[in-house]
Amino acid sequence: MKIDVNSDMGEGFGVYQLCDDAELINSVSSANIACGGHAGDPVLMTRLVRLARQRGVGIGAHPGYPDRQGFGRRPLPYTADEICQQVAYQLGALQAIAKAEGTSVVHLSFHAAMGNRINQDEALADQVMQMLTRIEPGLIIFCMPDSLIESAAQRAGLKTLPLFLVDRAYDRQGQLVPRGVEGAVITEEAQVRARVRQFLTDGTVTTIEGSVLPVRAQSLLIHSDTPGSVTLASLVRSEIERCGHTLATAADVLS
Amino acid sequence: MKIDVNSDMGEGFGVYQLCDDAELINSVSSANIACGGHAGDPVLMTRLVRLARQRGVGIGAHPGYPDRQGFGRRPLPYTADEICQQVAYQLGALQAIAKAEGTSVVHLSFHAAMGNRINQDEALADQVMQMLTRIEPGLIIFCMPDSLIESAAQRAGLKTLPLFLVDRAYDRQGQLVPRGVEGAVITEEAQVRARVRQFLTDGTVTTIEGSVLPVRAQSLLIHSDTPGSVTLASLVRSEIERCGHTLATAADVLS
Amino acid sequence: MKIDVNSDMGEGFGVYQLCDDAELINSVSSANIACGGHAGDPVLMTRLVRLARQRGVGIGAHPGYPDRQGFGRRPLPYTADEICQQVAYQLGALQAIAKAEGTSVVHLSFHAAMGNRINQDEALADQVMQMLTRIEPGLIIFCMPDSLIESAAQRAGLKTLPLFLVDRAYDRQGQLVPRGVEGAVITEEAQVRARVRQFLTDGTVTTIEGSVLPVRAQSLLIHSDTPGSVTLASLVRSEIERCGHTLATAADVLS
Amino acid sequence: MKIDVNSDMGEGFGVYQLCDDAELINSVSSANIACGGHAGDPVLMTRLVRLARQRGVGIGAHPGYPDRQGFGRRPLPYTADEICQQVAYQLGALQAIAKAEGTSVVHLSFHAAMGNRINQDEALADQVMQMLTRIEPGLIIFCMPDSLIESAAQRAGLKTLPLFLVDRAYDRQGQLVPRGVEGAVITEEAQVRARVRQFLTDGTVTTIEGSVLPVRAQSLLIHSDTPGSVTLASLVRSEIERCGHTLATAADVLS
Repeated sequence: MKIDVNSDMGEGFGVYQLCDDAELINSVSSANIACGGHAGDPVLMTRLVRLARQRGVGIGAHPGYPDRQGFGRRPLPYTADEICQQVAYQLGALQAIAKAEGTSVVHLSFHAAMGNRINQDEALADQVMQMLTRIEPGLIIFCMPDSLIESAAQRAGLKTLPLFLVDRAYDRQGQLVPRGVEGAVITEEAQVRARVRQFLTDGTVTTIEGSVLPVRAQSLLIHSDTPGSVTLASLVRSEIERCGHTLATAADVLS
Repeated sequence: MKIDVNSDMGEGFGVYQLCDDAELINSVSSANIACGGHAGDPVLMTRLVRLARQRGVGIGAHPGYPDRQGFGRRPLPYTADEICQQVAYQLGALQAIAKAEGTSVVHLSFHAAMGNRINQDEALADQVMQMLTRIEPGLIIFCMPDSLIESAAQRAGLKTLPLFLVDRAYDRQGQLVPRGVEGAVITEEAQVRARVRQFLTDGTVTTIEGSVLPVRAQSLLIHSDTPGSVTLASLVRSEIERCGHTLATAADVLS
Repeated sequence: MKIDVNSDMGEGFGVYQLCDDAELINSVSSANIACGGHAGDPVLMTRLVRLARQRGVGIGAHPGYPDRQGFGRRPLPYTADEICQQVAYQLGALQAIAKAEGTSVVHLSFHAAMGNRINQDEALADQVMQMLTRIEPGLIIFCMPDSLIESAAQRAGLKTLPLFLVDRAYDRQGQLVPRGVEGAVITEEAQVRARVRQFLTDGTVTTIEGSVLPVRAQSLLIHSDTPGSVTLASLVRSEIERCGHTLATAADVLS
Repeated sequence: MKIDVNSDMGEGFGVYQLCDDAELINSVSSANIACGGHAGDPVLMTRLVRLARQRGVGIGAHPGYPDRQGFGRRPLPYTADEICQQVAYQLGALQAIAKAEGTSVVHLSFHAAMGNRINQDEALADQVMQMLTRIEPGLIIFCMPDSLIESAAQRAGLKTLPLFLVDRAYDRQGQLVPRGVEGAVITEEAQVRARVRQFLTDGTVTTIEGSVLPVRAQSLLIHSDTPGSVTLASLVRSEIERCGHTLATAADVLS
């Protein structure tokens, strides 16, 4: 089985960086690159695009609310049109930087509050996806399985790649346990390794309550701001290989 | 003769606007749209792209230093790489917004201090133009005739459109009289009309010293922040038509 | 009777300005100066402080959400602590600029969405006012009569100055008619003049429904972004003088 | 002997932080707090002011160019007036936040490119210092000994505290070795300790060429972004105490 591993990258700007991207990129097949909205700037974007191209890592846009102070985590009162315009702006900026470096953007993964907003408003999700089809019909949308974003993207004719979040607990409904709750973020190495193995062998996840749920996913997401993310990502990669599977970019997984 | 008339547009953001773009656009064939660097935001950019598409006006990127406070007029200490990355970022952002609206970017015109910097540094001009060729090989570069930008663009295989500035005085060397100097900015209607007529009939300009110089240009530029710009632009347009010439987009002029 | 006339000023930044402040300031006794949050920058703030000092106009802080794109009109998800910190930051910035120019800040008037938020949350209003007392116990708070802000300010030991908005319609409950509603913003000169006269002679306002309500106010507010604000403000001033009253700063009105 | 130890703090914003300030502050007597120009925001400023007040650490303003992208290290083309206005704005903002927390600002230390600019232009240094006297006549200015800033501050009637930089090499002229040069930044613990001891016992520094120069200083500066700064600062503190000297705030040192 071919499986993708992805992480958010380029989340910093100027002298600031949330994560050692140059290390983390060695363990992923897809990089979701911040585009100057919640984080990122043209210098960092170019640096990440170069790293990704050199390592054969797929390049994705990671648009968010233009809110550096709140890191895109605050639910801002944007209209549907304004959200579309921001997504277009940020995606296009990364596309041109990728072209300038002789490569291209293959996927898109929404960041934090903007992603939550789109995922809760079907009309907005449709509007965004129809727009993305006009900008780049071959774009692959990363999404939670069975989400509004997934169905809207498919209605618009876009390809989708469902995610399994290896560092976040799920509840019995298959929803993510909110960050504030004890046990929501999983940082223990053995536990991350076990979750990856269980997913790869059984296609399931054990919920925070102890039940076992099926998981439909073709990509494993590790958050770059989870403590120890560089090490955890390398564990994910080695576990995939140990189970006899192959790390592959989103385009390869879907081909 | 087909001739282009262009102006900088979308120079504002949020509640601010330097000019009544919805009026000005009726008198031009090309709109240089601010891309969120020195001015502009995704909302304004979308609005201008729609206006331009509805009126058959050519859409161009108008990148500048990311300096809203200084309106892109301050010479910032950017490296050559940083300038390239900014140009790519801003151009790409507008390209995606144009695609989202079912149209595309056909030309590029640099703003203020960033344009001056590129026009004074041949290595930088070559670097920028080679990058632009990778992003969009069909892009038309607006430039002063016989400038570094013109020759660098042509070396990179890009098309160029030389400008005549109808609202700015020239000196006997064919250089623009600096804005600070008395008489540098021409706002008198009769004078603007006479300059347009002289250019169209004789292909010349009378300098601030009184001598007559040949002008090689295929596009007339009127600055949107020149006092009375909306009226002046409409005079330029009517003078062109009165002289039996045709207003045309950059692409049409060069075809 | 001494009465204050105030307006929001310095609402711009860099090359942008919403209003001709240098004209408007001739008709007011108090200037509410934007402090770099929703609008304003150190250059504009200094310019306004100088104009105010030269004309004997009272200097006030006009803090708002740090949201230039939305002009402080969007309800942002700030915590109570974050609002306090923003108010302190912006007020202090203006205080130092005033001291640098040999003068001082005498009043404070909240802007748009931040003001609305504080005016709807008593605990927040108390927290803000107690903080303002620690920063400047002599500060005069501009407010709607009988509002949460007025009572919180008085509980904290601050002086208050109740406002009558001459360019905005009131309903029979004494509330402002929302901006979107037909007739909410009053721009007709005769009507503004009549409202000022009625307030000065009878102490009442005629509501949008036609009833007459008593108005308790010591200051008349004219919005600088109301169309024709410079002319309207000068009408307000001349009407006050014609009725035999005296224009006075907030400090004078309360002394 | 009483001696001050200071460091730049609050250099981050939102989710970003350059240094573990909560640890570093245990080893200093003065905190130079970024004021929202090159770094810092009202939330971080408040947090640092609280930490400083709790630990009896002196609070200082650390103004810089309003250039978050460049961290205040780029020489921006500001006029003398604009620099004064920025310094006033940032200092005032911190003063109000300090008052809101029941304390006050006692010193000021310029950041990077803005400090270098002021230190190279005597007229500008005089203009800034005269303005600072109007804002807060008791302010203590941190400076290099025998610098333009020191003499201008003294001419304006301000107190000064000369610095010795324990983590930066000096040349035989007593100037700092530029950051790019090998050996310019000193991060070895034994070397930092030895430099502190030599300064405290002999009042000298050994230059990068090996000669010995006298050093006139009353405060030791450790850069918070020097690798290992938290540990180095704690070494500086323990070395001072081991030599029988006392850590003291700027105000105490000068009293």
